Amino acid sequence: MLCSMINLPTYDDVISASQRLQGHAHRTPVLRSTTADQMLGAQLFFKCENFQRMGAFKFRGAFNALSKFSDAQRKAGVITFSSGNHAQAIALSARTLGMPAVIVMPHDAPAAKKAATQGYGAEVISYDRFTQDREALTSQMAAERGMTLIPPYDHPDVMAGQGTAAKELFEEVGELDYLLVCLGGGGLLSGCALAARALSPGCKVYGVEPEAGNDGQQSFRSGSIVNIPTPKTIADGAQTQHLGQYTFGVIKRDVTDILTATDAQLIEAMKFFAERMKMVVEPTGCLGFAAARHAGLPIQGKRVGVLVSGGNVDLGRLAEFLAA
Amino acid sequence: MLCSMINLPTYDDVISASQRLQGHAHRTPVLRSTTADQMLGAQLFFKCENFQRMGAFKFRGAFNALSKFSDAQRKAGVITFSSGNHAQAIALSARTLGMPAVIVMPHDAPAAKKAATQGYGAEVISYDRFTQDREALTSQMAAERGMTLIPPYDHPDVMAGQGTAAKELFEEVGELDYLLVCLGGGGLLSGCALAARALSPGCKVYGVEPEAGNDGQQSFRSGSIVNIPTPKTIADGAQTQHLGQYTFGVIKRDVTDILTATDAQLIEAMKFFAERMKMVVEPTGCLGFAAARHAGLPIQGKRVGVLVSGGNVDLGRLAEFLAA
Repeated sequence: MLCSMINLPTYDDVISASQRLQGHAHRTPVLRSTTADQMLGAQLFFKCENFQRMGAFKFRGAFNALSKFSDAQRKAGVITFSSGNHAQAIALSARTLGMPAVIVMPHDAPAAKKAATQGYGAEVISYDRFTQDREALTSQMAAERGMTLIPPYDHPDVMAGQGTAAKELFEEVGELDYLLVCLGGGGLLSGCALAARALSPGCKVYGVEPEAGNDGQQSFRSGSIVNIPTPKTIADGAQTQHLGQYTFGVIKRDVTDILTATDAQLIEAMKFFAERMKMVVEPTGCLGFAAARHAGLPIQGKRVGVLVSGGNVDLGRLAEFLAA
Repeated sequence: MLCSMINLPTYDDVISASQRLQGHAHRTPVLRSTTADQMLGAQLFFKCENFQRMGAFKFRGAFNALSKFSDAQRKAGVITFSSGNHAQAIALSARTLGMPAVIVMPHDAPAAKKAATQGYGAEVISYDRFTQDREALTSQMAAERGMTLIPPYDHPDVMAGQGTAAKELFEEVGELDYLLVCLGGGGLLSGCALAARALSPGCKVYGVEPEAGNDGQQSFRSGSIVNIPTPKTIADGAQTQHLGQYTFGVIKRDVTDILTATDAQLIEAMKFFAERMKMVVEPTGCLGFAAARHAGLPIQGKRVGVLVSGGNVDLGRLAEFLAA
C-alpha cells in the first residue's frame, strides 16, 4: 500500500542529478585489469568510486539532495545519521553549499571517518548503534533544531545522485551484460538500477551484501522489507538493518537478484585490489568483485560492470587486512 | 665527445611511440586531490602510472622498443637486466609480441616482481647486485644467445615510450608550471622532458631521486655522469648507480634541476596516497609528491604535474609501511 503512495525517482532524476554534480563531483575512472579478466574469463569494468570526493560515491547523493534545498532549508541546515561515508558526504556538501550540518554517528565508527567529518566542519553527535535507534534520535533532533533530515539512502534525491555513478559507467563503456553493486540500504543499488534500465536495458543488475546481514536478499525474495539486528561484518558501510521504502520500491522492480559475500571473500578482494590494481578499497567496496568471483554467476565471456563504492578504511586496519 | 656522436630521441619519437602503444598500454587517469591542493596551496595533477599495465610506466618504453624489432630480432628474442618493473614490462611485451625473453634480475628483488615476471613467461636469471656487474653479465649473455639487449632506461626507444605518459598528461590537463618526475636511470624523466618542451614550453621539469642515491643531482650539477655505489633506499626502482649517455644528454639539456627525497618522506607520501587518494604507490613512485611537499619549490598558486611511476610493492611490505 505504502509503495503506491510514494513517488519513486526516475532516470530523469538521475540526469538532473548529473547536471547538478557537474564541476562538483569527480567523474571517476573506469579501470580494467587483465589479471582479473583472465581469472574470471570475463571482461570486467571497475567503476572506481573510491576515487570520488571524500573517498566514496556518497558525495553524489548528498550533494544532489542538498542542492535542492530552499533558502530557508539552507539557513537551518541539514541533519543526518550515518555509519560513515554519508556523514562525510553531507558534511562536505553542506560546507560547499554554506549551510550548517549535524551528523549522528555510531560511537564505534572508524576513526578516519569521524575525523574527516569533523574536518569538514560538521557537528558530530555519537550514539550506541547496538542499543539506540538512530532514526528516532535523529528525527527528534531535526524537529528540535528545524533542520532538514537527509537520510543516508531512503530519499529520492539521494538515490538519483548515486545513480549518476552507473550513468557515467554506461556512457563510458557502453552496454553491459551484468552490473554488480554493493548493497547496504540500497541507495547506490536503486540509483544504478535506474540508470541500467535506461542505458543498458538487457543488463542484469545484482545487489551484493554481506552474508552476515542479508536483509536485502530476504526482502527481495519475500517481497517485503525484512528487518534484522545490526549485522557483524567488516563491511561497515553495509551494516544496515533494513532497506527503505523508496529503495526497495526500485529494487524489487528493477534488480535481478541479491547475492552475498563473506568477510573472508571481502579480504581476498581487498588484497587483490591492492596488489594487482594498486588501489585501496574499503571492505564494503569489495562486495561486487567478491560476488563476481564466488557467487557462481555465468559471467564467462560477458561484459561485467563492478561498482567499487569507496576506499575509506583506517590505515591501521588496512595494514592488518593486507597482512592477513 | 660521446654525446655529439649519439642521436638523442625527439618529441617526434614520442608521438610515434604513442601510436605504437595505442590499444596496448592503458591511458592512465589523472587524479586530483582537494586535500593535497589545500595542503600545498597549489593545483596538483597526478598522472597515475601505478594503474598502467603491470603496475608501472615501464610497459610504455618496453613495448615501444620491442615493437620496432625486425623479424630476425623477434625470433631470437630480448634480454635485459632490471631491478623489477622493467623486467615485468619486457616480459609482458615479449609475450604480447610472441618472442622469447630473458631477464637478469637482482637476487633480492621484491618477490611480487620476480613472480610476476615469471608469470609473464620470461626466463629469470639472478645475480648479486652488491658484487656483480649486471650490465657486463647481460651483454655477455646477449652475445651468446644472439638476443637483443633492451636496457631499462638508456635507449632512445625506451625513453620515447616513457615520454608518452607526460604527453597524455599535458593533452588532458593543458600546460603546467611544474612537472615532478621520479628519477632512477632517467628514462621516464628524459622522455617526459621531451614531451614538456614540446607541449608546455614554459614548464619547469624536475627530476626527483632518493637522497641516498643522488648521482643524478651530482651529474646534473657537475655536467658529467657520476657513478655511485648501489644506494640503500626503499625506492628500489631508483637504485641505479648512474644515468645513461642518452638519458643524460636529454636531461642536461631539457631538465631544470634534480631534487631529492628521504625515505621517511617517501613513507609519508605512501601513507597519504593510501589514506587520502585511495591508491597504492611504490616507494619510487612517491618521489615526485615528496618533493612537491618538502623540496621548497615555490609552487604556491601554480599548476603542478606529478608523475606517479608505479605501484608494485609486496603486500607485506606495504602493510609495514602503512602501519609505520
